[in-house]
Amino acid sequence: MAQVSTSHRGNALNYSSIRKLLPYAKKAIESGVKVIKLNIGDPDLKTPKEFLNVLQNWDIDPIRYAQPAGEPELIKALLSYYHDCGYIDLSAEDIIVTIGGSEALSMAMFAVADIGDEILVPEPFFANYSILASQLSIKLVPIPTSIKNGFRLPNKKKIMGLINERTKAVLYSSPGNPTGTTYNEKEITMLLEIAKEKGIYLISDEVYREFIFSDDKHVSLVPYMNKYPNNLIMLDSFSKRYNLCGARLGMLVSKSEKVKDIVLRLANGRLSGGLIDQMMGAALKDVPKKHFVNSTKELKKRRDVVINNLKKIKGVKTYVPDGAFYLMVELPIKDAEDFSRFLLEEFRIDNTTVMLAPGKGFYLTKNKGINEIRIAYVVNSAELKKAIDIIGKGLEAYTG
Amino acid sequence: MAQVSTSHRGNALNYSSIRKLLPYAKKAIESGVKVIKLNIGDPDLKTPKEFLNVLQNWDIDPIRYAQPAGEPELIKALLSYYHDCGYIDLSAEDIIVTIGGSEALSMAMFAVADIGDEILVPEPFFANYSILASQLSIKLVPIPTSIKNGFRLPNKKKIMGLINERTKAVLYSSPGNPTGTTYNEKEITMLLEIAKEKGIYLISDEVYREFIFSDDKHVSLVPYMNKYPNNLIMLDSFSKRYNLCGARLGMLVSKSEKVKDIVLRLANGRLSGGLIDQMMGAALKDVPKKHFVNSTKELKKRRDVVINNLKKIKGVKTYVPDGAFYLMVELPIKDAEDFSRFLLEEFRIDNTTVMLAPGKGFYLTKNKGINEIRIAYVVNSAELKKAIDIIGKGLEAYTG
Repeated sequence: MAQVSTSHRGNALNYSSIRKLLPYAKKAIESGVKVIKLNIGDPDLKTPKEFLNVLQNWDIDPIRYAQPAGEPELIKALLSYYHDCGYIDLSAEDIIVTIGGSEALSMAMFAVADIGDEILVPEPFFANYSILASQLSIKLVPIPTSIKNGFRLPNKKKIMGLINERTKAVLYSSPGNPTGTTYNEKEITMLLEIAKEKGIYLISDEVYREFIFSDDKHVSLVPYMNKYPNNLIMLDSFSKRYNLCGARLGMLVSKSEKVKDIVLRLANGRLSGGLIDQMMGAALKDVPKKHFVNSTKELKKRRDVVINNLKKIKGVKTYVPDGAFYLMVELPIKDAEDFSRFLLEEFRIDNTTVMLAPGKGFYLTKNKGINEIRIAYVVNSAELKKAIDIIGKGLEAYTG
Repeated sequence: MAQVSTSHRGNALNYSSIRKLLPYAKKAIESGVKVIKLNIGDPDLKTPKEFLNVLQNWDIDPIRYAQPAGEPELIKALLSYYHDCGYIDLSAEDIIVTIGGSEALSMAMFAVADIGDEILVPEPFFANYSILASQLSIKLVPIPTSIKNGFRLPNKKKIMGLINERTKAVLYSSPGNPTGTTYNEKEITMLLEIAKEKGIYLISDEVYREFIFSDDKHVSLVPYMNKYPNNLIMLDSFSKRYNLCGARLGMLVSKSEKVKDIVLRLANGRLSGGLIDQMMGAALKDVPKKHFVNSTKELKKRRDVVINNLKKIKGVKTYVPDGAFYLMVELPIKDAEDFSRFLLEEFRIDNTTVMLAPGKGFYLTKNKGINEIRIAYVVNSAELKKAIDIIGKGLEAYTG
């Protein structure tokens, strides 16, 4: 009887590094310890009631397939949202609704890159970029950035030096996960020049687009799509913006006919996204603009609480990010993963501890980010203050 | 300025062949013609109210991520359903919830096959198998079957002859789409022997498992999983069974630890399925068993209406399928796609026409199925009778 085996590419897929800590967190919680979770980007704010109302008033029966590229009502609402953002040249056919931002990313990468092709991405980056690229046998090539200057992009020459004949795109998130770093117009313009000169794509992950804390506006790729119709793809999602993580509602926006044609074939291949999620998303038209004013104000307050309290801890280095709800922190120790485990296993204040995301999970380059952590400020200010205090006292206990 | 290009694999993806007819159907409808749609498997029956009640009573806020492998409540309800089916050895950890049957299929193929590997599949088969395999650079190799004997499987020797060192699995659907053909225990046992002897996987698509019209029970792979834990994967979905096509609720069931490990990594890569769909699916526990009794009775009635009326048309050949809600029909003409277009463009009775799925869309082998159509009996008996009458009179007009 012959032996049966699984695929090499399947066995090459990584789990996220956060996963390693889960058993320790579970054990702590089961033993009655309170764990403040700063490790994942699942915001605690409420879903706007306009969306929930759609469920409570549901009347479509049977729950039929949705249109492969998205329900027209949802696309209409999205178009209106983007027009309000000032992207007046966008049309309904430039928007394809996907099953979460994850699917939008996967489809975009598939559309531009073949097996063995390369996509540049500023490092550190969202760990799932790696997993999705690896599924598609695409090689991600890091553009190095550093906590020392708040993870700004390097200059054009340095980026150009990373491009070869297999490079098909630069993928980036701004405001960034895990950094919160928000690229300014100068940085985006540089990337546009590179894409144009080298004949490659820019793929922007803009899911944190509304969470900007400076006076500068978010610099989106969309307004540049008329000038560079063939080079640009924007990825977006309802998840973070409307506290709708579990509604799998992503969008791929492009004016490239060739890209959209491939993405539509992919969308046909999986038949339909979720009809309920999409009809719920269409209520976007009823959500008041002040939703973002309130949530951004709250997030900015939290960011400041985190930074002001981190400043009190000796040897900790960070910076002031302009967006999203993350920041990276350098700790005065060798191994932040070991420290994170220490917090979960051994260290408590008032029977409370903290779960962190080890920085190295956001780096593809070996030995980078080992002494860094990512903090997601997805709990309220009082909890955050307590959490940072635990990190500070925990560092003393860990190193002392 | 360099030219930007899309991926070769993207451009190699096919659209479904049904797509070609859509503009003609649209034009007919816009001109006021009634089009009876027998071309897609989107059932017209209602969604059980137990599911819709979950929406109307929704109280989870915010809409958080679902567990990557599925919400525990849903898995519990599924386990109970499978236990009721008699699969008493199944455990909760053998079930992974996916975003529709499509994702379950894609994940299963990824887990067992590398780039360039082969998967055997009885032909004709569901067109999306091709699209999903092509996305993964997996080669589907047809196992030829024929309308002459109702698309039964060929003998063991013939199937063994198609297997080489790159063959990783046999994938099949039973009851089948597009044939309605339902494999008996002898056929399944043969496939099990082949899998065992050759060290390959069997992947069964059982989404039509409850729609069986003979006295024989559905033969599932699940009861064999204890004996062959490393070779078997079962794919399932709520879509057809509960008229929930737009709720993307699929399942992958296996006892292979290696397969489940890879599938879990894939599930982590896309973070979460839809929370709302999954919580709705958990209401499965409240759906009365007679749901299937009623819908199967209705489908059997429709099947008989289709077959009895097809018999009246000269030169038409078909067979009596035992399950699902499809059958293939051989027409006494050369090109069934051209005939389908003719119906949509030119032929009407009482200002009504019919939309069919051309058979060749379900064949990978060139020049096969050209004179066949698939009928999905997803409209009521009166409409079906009218539709078959239109096909018969249409054939006279087309050939006359």
